[in-house]
Amino acid sequence: MTREFAFIEALRAIAVSPAARGLADDAAVLEIGGEKLVLTMDTLVEGIHFLPDDPPESIAWKLVAVNASDLAAKGAEPLGCLKSHALGEDEWDRAFLGGMEQACRHFGLPLLGGDTVRMPRGSARSFSLTAIGRGLEDVPVPTRSGAQAGDVVWCSGTLGDSGLGLALLSDQVRDVSPDHARLIDRYRRPMPEPALGAALAPLTSAMMDVSDGLLIDARRMAEASGVAIHFDASEVPLSDAYRAVAGEDVEQRIAAMTAGDDYVLLFTAPTVHSAYLRAAAKGLDTQIHAIGTVSEGSGIVLEWKGAPISLPDRLGYQH
Amino acid sequence: MTREFAFIEALRAIAVSPAARGLADDAAVLEIGGEKLVLTMDTLVEGIHFLPDDPPESIAWKLVAVNASDLAAKGAEPLGCLKSHALGEDEWDRAFLGGMEQACRHFGLPLLGGDTVRMPRGSARSFSLTAIGRGLEDVPVPTRSGAQAGDVVWCSGTLGDSGLGLALLSDQVRDVSPDHARLIDRYRRPMPEPALGAALAPLTSAMMDVSDGLLIDARRMAEASGVAIHFDASEVPLSDAYRAVAGEDVEQRIAAMTAGDDYVLLFTAPTVHSAYLRAAAKGLDTQIHAIGTVSEGSGIVLEWKGAPISLPDRLGYQH
Repeated sequence: MTREFAFIEALRAIAVSPAARGLADDAAVLEIGGEKLVLTMDTLVEGIHFLPDDPPESIAWKLVAVNASDLAAKGAEPLGCLKSHALGEDEWDRAFLGGMEQACRHFGLPLLGGDTVRMPRGSARSFSLTAIGRGLEDVPVPTRSGAQAGDVVWCSGTLGDSGLGLALLSDQVRDVSPDHARLIDRYRRPMPEPALGAALAPLTSAMMDVSDGLLIDARRMAEASGVAIHFDASEVPLSDAYRAVAGEDVEQRIAAMTAGDDYVLLFTAPTVHSAYLRAAAKGLDTQIHAIGTVSEGSGIVLEWKGAPISLPDRLGYQH
Repeated sequence: MTREFAFIEALRAIAVSPAARGLADDAAVLEIGGEKLVLTMDTLVEGIHFLPDDPPESIAWKLVAVNASDLAAKGAEPLGCLKSHALGEDEWDRAFLGGMEQACRHFGLPLLGGDTVRMPRGSARSFSLTAIGRGLEDVPVPTRSGAQAGDVVWCSGTLGDSGLGLALLSDQVRDVSPDHARLIDRYRRPMPEPALGAALAPLTSAMMDVSDGLLIDARRMAEASGVAIHFDASEVPLSDAYRAVAGEDVEQRIAAMTAGDDYVLLFTAPTVHSAYLRAAAKGLDTQIHAIGTVSEGSGIVLEWKGAPISLPDRLGYQH
């Protein structure tokens, strides 16, 4: 058990309001005035969640996007955000605000307030954002715990691009093919789709976003739901860019399933809803992929072209 | 113009939603489902907003309290909070959570969610809290901009205690009289009163909390309202502890008016409401103090026992 995990367990003991959902969901859900308010807060720390030389515009984009991803996973309409900003260099901060303005507009999350602070010299800076959304009318806000045996498991985009982008950045690969640029862009500018989440939510049995890696996040969903989730690694959707740079053998498929930072939707639904779900995605000019199945049991069951394979030691980013 | 101030000006240019109130109020006010949602977010940074050896319980208390103070200033009923936590030592973090739990219970702000992050070694840690409240029914959420010529200016507690407490801590005074302890406690464990804010709000013309110092915060209110605010420094309410430790001559009165970290309410109301306001406070076992008047004009006008005196160079904590 990591320190972060132990601390979150201690936090759970004090977060007893039902609105907190046991701190085991992507967001809190607070009922007020007949509305379901969806609340999430994520922090990005220099040297931990972004590289010090990442462009400030893209750090701001990511800060907004990772929160928009949580709203998307709850089918919530974005309403606005508050931001805490640690001041740095003037020019850097101005560029950050430029990226922030773009992202706020793109995701429909107008800046409503927050705080601006100075840091002691030499300290890593951190940026927190709280996003507020409104849950769908007449539809419960999706949980992670509703997956049922027999359901289909879906995801809303290709996996592994962002992780590969980060690997390319970290290894400082000099080659600058368009594929590299595309992958790095997926790392720096994730593109969650709140409108897609809202379109899918009414027919999903469980939904969350993939932020730490497909396998680790799916295991969380399986645990919360008391079911087993089955994947065939050969069926995981990969982008052309991913295939071109990394290939698509079993190792690369597993890498894509454990990399994290994807910010796509992971959801389950009864098979009878499959056609509707595909149509809903198509109506938004996007695609969803059936990537697994739910059965009775527990944990993640992994196959490669129909034959069982063992789970990797590392399922994703472990808190 | 400080860097922080310049940055906030740039932020204003992108915070165009009316709910943001031009980033010139204590909180954002978002209308949803017939309710007025009051949203605030404050960050405490190690070495800037708290001393590294402050007890972790009291840092957590302060984090919750400074946000509760913003809700109080808007007359809002506290609903819940989200917190971003930078991990430190296990024992320290546990003690912090203990203080957090106490404060969340005291202020009626159950923990609903947030984020927990690691920091690079040696970095100052920071803690952000977003508090959510509900504005009073059928009453507009108080602004800073409604003060009218002829109004009385009020505050909800004594001033300067916290600043003197910090001064005592910083000078490492060895004397540990009960008065010192009381002042240090005011610095470490501010006691805003959301219930008082809600009781007063319906009859105030403007309300905000005093966080940066009475004079600087009152000047903000005067500017927002397009009026002048008059104080007689000899009438500023001081605690017995303050008087015992620092005295009450003009320098000490001015110090109390510019120290900051008071987290009391500053508000204006027509004279006709004075008796009601006093009764409302008394009903909550607390006191409010008439400390000034509003006139046409601009800025702050200061007197000492009826004779004009000049404003100090420093009106409070300048962002």
